[in-house]
Amino acid sequence: MIVETPSPPYYAIIFTALLADDLEGYEETAKRMRELAKDHEGYYGMEDIGDKWEINISYWRDLESMIAWKQNAEHMIAQENGKKQWYECFKMRISKVERDYSFVK
Amino acid sequence: MIVETPSPPYYAIIFTALLADDLEGYEETAKRMRELAKDHEGYYGMEDIGDKWEINISYWRDLESMIAWKQNAEHMIAQENGKKQWYECFKMRISKVERDYSFVK
Repeated sequence: MIVETPSPPYYAIIFTALLADDLEGYEETAKRMRELAKDHEGYYGMEDIGDKWEINISYWRDLESMIAWKQNAEHMIAQENGKKQWYECFKMRISKVERDYSFVK
Repeated sequence: MIVETPSPPYYAIIFTALLADDLEGYEETAKRMRELAKDHEGYYGMEDIGDKWEINISYWRDLESMIAWKQNAEHMIAQENGKKQWYECFKMRISKVERDYSFVK
């Protein structure tokens, strides 16, 4: 669940959302997007938790790899469906990870 | 749950963790830390979700306000207890939010 990322700098897309009531097609699409992202160069992985409220963080090598993902045709359709149907509201933050620290017992 | 943040740039501390079995004192401390953070200048708020796996994102005005929070005496004790008792593992990422986008239906 904790994504293994290289030494900073790298990027994180922080996506916080409230899901709507009509979730038809949502799970299949979310699963497909997770698979699809893996084929993208510069994708490091995703951490996500949630039910009604959702936090989803994906990690990327650089701005270029994030833009390529944003513009993936299948992903663009999913983004549109997200706005039309699955999300009541969301906020997406593009952030540059400058430092990180890991702890394992 | 979605924190209202000013226009970028600002900072996010992305904290992803796996909780241990012995959670005695954890809930009280987590609640107290949420209250304590509010007294800190430059603190914008926190988004967190999770049970066994936890994602916690706090938003801050700048590096200085994050450092002051990290060095708060009561928070330092909580951080030590977190390592000794409550967390199996965690990763903390300091990131600078460069752009954001909000959607409300």
